[in-house]
Amino acid sequence: MDIAFALYDKFTALDLIGPYETLAGHPDVTPHFVAGDLSTVRCNSGLPIQPTTTFAELDRPDVVVVPGSPAWRAALDDEALVSWLAAVHPSTTWTTSVCTGSLLLAKSGALAGKRATTHWTTREALAELGAEVATERVVFDGKVVTGAGVSAGIDMALSLAAELWGEDTAKMIQLMLEYDPQPPFDTGSPEKAGPALVATALER
Amino acid sequence: MDIAFALYDKFTALDLIGPYETLAGHPDVTPHFVAGDLSTVRCNSGLPIQPTTTFAELDRPDVVVVPGSPAWRAALDDEALVSWLAAVHPSTTWTTSVCTGSLLLAKSGALAGKRATTHWTTREALAELGAEVATERVVFDGKVVTGAGVSAGIDMALSLAAELWGEDTAKMIQLMLEYDPQPPFDTGSPEKAGPALVATALER
Repeated sequence: MDIAFALYDKFTALDLIGPYETLAGHPDVTPHFVAGDLSTVRCNSGLPIQPTTTFAELDRPDVVVVPGSPAWRAALDDEALVSWLAAVHPSTTWTTSVCTGSLLLAKSGALAGKRATTHWTTREALAELGAEVATERVVFDGKVVTGAGVSAGIDMALSLAAELWGEDTAKMIQLMLEYDPQPPFDTGSPEKAGPALVATALER
Repeated sequence: MDIAFALYDKFTALDLIGPYETLAGHPDVTPHFVAGDLSTVRCNSGLPIQPTTTFAELDRPDVVVVPGSPAWRAALDDEALVSWLAAVHPSTTWTTSVCTGSLLLAKSGALAGKRATTHWTTREALAELGAEVATERVVFDGKVVTGAGVSAGIDMALSLAAELWGEDTAKMIQLMLEYDPQPPFDTGSPEKAGPALVATALER
């Protein structure tokens, strides 16, 4: 099973690595880090990742994972990325995104008439791109699976693992990732964080 | 503030990227991906990361983050890595690990007489290396902070962010990461997973 992890300038690292760590350890999986060419790609805080595959080389991945980015507006103008997403989506088994990656899927046409989620700051932008905006953490609509902001990629990928390999395997993956989250605060959603923290966040 | 993310052959990607995503977006932080030389390092499921800095170049990081690995036994014999950890620890503000990264800290001498946690499968190994084994998800002992398996790096780093920059900033980071975890199963610890799943996991 070929899983394509799409890379682009200033993507958010955890968006990509949450699903990668959850899915790529399975013996059936061949992970590909796909970009326009093989030049090093830097995520938004500087992590340098070396692509393993170019868009031209991988035209029929089984699963696509699209991470988000704080620079999502610029990414929407990345013609090579968006046109590759449009080209590969018809033949995937699953097309997935994390965070603002859903905006890229929407731009590519993959979310037409689909329910999808995104980072809480970009719900309006997703609606403007034609998707039906959901606010759940993980949303399945047909073969399209979207996760909410950043850390939601782990939850998204565990749910996908259960579809791919069954619940027992997904539970095993969760145990080996020791995914028994204990956040030190309860501020992980705008509703929980409250209006003051949300206002400060939006000013950044 | 120089934060050193230690790279080595077959490290676990999410161990590194959880803390990286949590800490490296802060304007005070300069992240460094540090290895013996600048050759590409591959994590255990194949992700290629390009180091930005060599061990020789960074001898006084403010914070060190050491990820774990399923190949932790081999990593304990990585003399360049272990001796660098021993050399930089005395001058750090915080020395931290995720998952079996604590075994590397123990080997370097940084955990002598310290309470520390690790992946649930390696508690005995950590004790044999001289640490006082704790089973909490995040353990502070002086300036040493250790996280349990893999995904615990996010919890560890949020707790550290609160120490570095105060609780309000840590809460903001949690909101922007949308860290409101909703695991699809409740199998994230050996106690929760139950003996059958644990036995299967240990056979792998």
